[in-house]
Amino acid sequence: MNELTGSHPLVDGRTTTSSLVRAIQGVRGAHTPVWFMRQAGRSLPEYRALRTGRDMIECCLDPATAAEITCQPVRRHGVDAAVFFSDIIVPLKLAGVPVELVAGRGPVFAEPARTAADIATLRRECTVERLRENLAPITEAVRLATDELGSTPLIGFAGAPFTLAAYLVEGGPSKDHMRARTLMHADPAAWAELTAWAAELSGVFLEAQVQAGASAVQLFDSWAGSLSVDDYRTHVAPASRHTLERVNALHYRDAEAEGYTAQPMQVPTIHFAVGSGHLLEALGETAGHAIGVDWRTPLNEANTRLGGRFPLQGNIDPALLQAPQTQLDAHVDDVLAQGEAAPAHIVNLGHGVPPETDPDRLTGIVERVHSARL
Amino acid sequence: MNELTGSHPLVDGRTTTSSLVRAIQGVRGAHTPVWFMRQAGRSLPEYRALRTGRDMIECCLDPATAAEITCQPVRRHGVDAAVFFSDIIVPLKLAGVPVELVAGRGPVFAEPARTAADIATLRRECTVERLRENLAPITEAVRLATDELGSTPLIGFAGAPFTLAAYLVEGGPSKDHMRARTLMHADPAAWAELTAWAAELSGVFLEAQVQAGASAVQLFDSWAGSLSVDDYRTHVAPASRHTLERVNALHYRDAEAEGYTAQPMQVPTIHFAVGSGHLLEALGETAGHAIGVDWRTPLNEANTRLGGRFPLQGNIDPALLQAPQTQLDAHVDDVLAQGEAAPAHIVNLGHGVPPETDPDRLTGIVERVHSARL
Repeated sequence: MNELTGSHPLVDGRTTTSSLVRAIQGVRGAHTPVWFMRQAGRSLPEYRALRTGRDMIECCLDPATAAEITCQPVRRHGVDAAVFFSDIIVPLKLAGVPVELVAGRGPVFAEPARTAADIATLRRECTVERLRENLAPITEAVRLATDELGSTPLIGFAGAPFTLAAYLVEGGPSKDHMRARTLMHADPAAWAELTAWAAELSGVFLEAQVQAGASAVQLFDSWAGSLSVDDYRTHVAPASRHTLERVNALHYRDAEAEGYTAQPMQVPTIHFAVGSGHLLEALGETAGHAIGVDWRTPLNEANTRLGGRFPLQGNIDPALLQAPQTQLDAHVDDVLAQGEAAPAHIVNLGHGVPPETDPDRLTGIVERVHSARL
Repeated sequence: MNELTGSHPLVDGRTTTSSLVRAIQGVRGAHTPVWFMRQAGRSLPEYRALRTGRDMIECCLDPATAAEITCQPVRRHGVDAAVFFSDIIVPLKLAGVPVELVAGRGPVFAEPARTAADIATLRRECTVERLRENLAPITEAVRLATDELGSTPLIGFAGAPFTLAAYLVEGGPSKDHMRARTLMHADPAAWAELTAWAAELSGVFLEAQVQAGASAVQLFDSWAGSLSVDDYRTHVAPASRHTLERVNALHYRDAEAEGYTAQPMQVPTIHFAVGSGHLLEALGETAGHAIGVDWRTPLNEANTRLGGRFPLQGNIDPALLQAPQTQLDAHVDDVLAQGEAAPAHIVNLGHGVPPETDPDRLTGIVERVHSARL
């Protein structure tokens, strides 16, 4: 047991002085940390080789494979963090939700949850306890990955409650998530039940990764951008806050021993939502320590709107990864310059690595960021 | 010839005192005008009956059918304006671009324009002159529609240059329009050629509708929301401005006779871009008289960001069309209240009518808006 928190013992201090962890805590170091959303998978030939003939979810649930994919981009690019290789639907699947990933389409749910009755059934059958019982492949993969990663932090991964709930209501990917957005108004009580359940699953999924060795987490909200700020605050933010607060309740085991804080050190969290330029202020109210910004909003503008209170992550436009090197370099320099406005900066793309990306472009970005004069 | 402008004679004065035209000019009247994007088509049974067994583009190019579909929602809902029934790809098709509408997918281009050479070929083969030669079905449909509409204004329709260009570069619908956004950085000169050409096609398409009887126009940018504000200003706004300025050069024939302006009266324009909350200030620089706001940004906030300078159109959330009546009513009242901040307000949805909408909900919105106390 952790004496500071009464919960289970947590991450040891091997990553607490890393550039990533410090940046999320608002501390600038000798260089700006950099990692890439979706760095694990997609564009890497060594990933494709490993995936050949194997289902995505099967790879997520095979500890050796998931750990290997998680570590590949750290070896290749020299990024400052690994991100756990998983999928937004993994905690749902482990909780017993019937869902399949269909190539070229995305997750497809056999039984969409569209009514209060559907949601009650889901909550009764696909419980947090059931998720907990099935988490062994996840925690084992995290252990294997962090064993290799050493002092390089692993970022735990989970989809935000709105994204999970929207998938469940729609039954799969959808444009503008109309059915989900209708339900939050048509039956706010049922919607609250659904998102509270999703928040708990996401929270437990992240907690398990931290307890197994992840040094930080990122909550990914793929679809919050479809919401008005009022809807986000009323119908979504409470659930995302719940997920992040579950992680905020965790502390590094030997935070005091590390000596650069007098308080027990919370496990740092990053909150990222795609297309959320209009939601930035509301994202700042949801208990994340750092805010991820997509490619549409310049970091200096985001910083102003957030009152200068948050370390920012982002926001190289993935479209520039295919542009000539001089344009990409200039853009990276711009992002670094704009990031100087924030208390601290973690360089990332403004969205996931596109599958057709030349991995060398990513390696080049890491080198450029690391050699930038601060 | 129009004595005021030296151009062809334009719309007569039958709609210049309409609530829609006045609102776009910033003048509030006895009631707030209301119409719905995609009101022509989709949700109406009388439209579906007419479309049975017929291709969408075939219907767009059959004057009697296009005029009929254009007028249907005015008859049914009592909206304050018709919007011309067409499709974003129609001017491309009329200019000779090989493109088909594929059901369930959208427009598919046999020959995507991805290089400077592709774009040069496109500009050489698919010219504005070729578009002009093929506009008869459009102008005839507008004439038929406006004959029926009388004092109800017809809003001309065209897709914005970025949306057209993105389709052409991608070869069809795409997420985040990555190839198009890459091209604008990789070869800004070729991109500028492409968007200038698209701007000219859109401008001529709108001009023809106005010269045949449309009283106002709306430029629809479905995809501008994927852009950062810098990219929008540098690589897209000049083209959209060009399209709108072509229409701004047109004036009502008997504007002076109408007596409520001493200046020749420009044909009013509405500029709408989906997901453009982060682009509002930049949209205010592109020569539209009124700005359409999608459902994500409250109108009072949009008005503040636009410096109170623009009549605003919007922004009922389409997701509320399926919610219980009391929620929908409350939302419509909110939109009306928020719209009071702007110099004038045109009620609309924040995006197109979803196909599954019950038409009676739309009729109910019109009644509620018209009976609202100002």
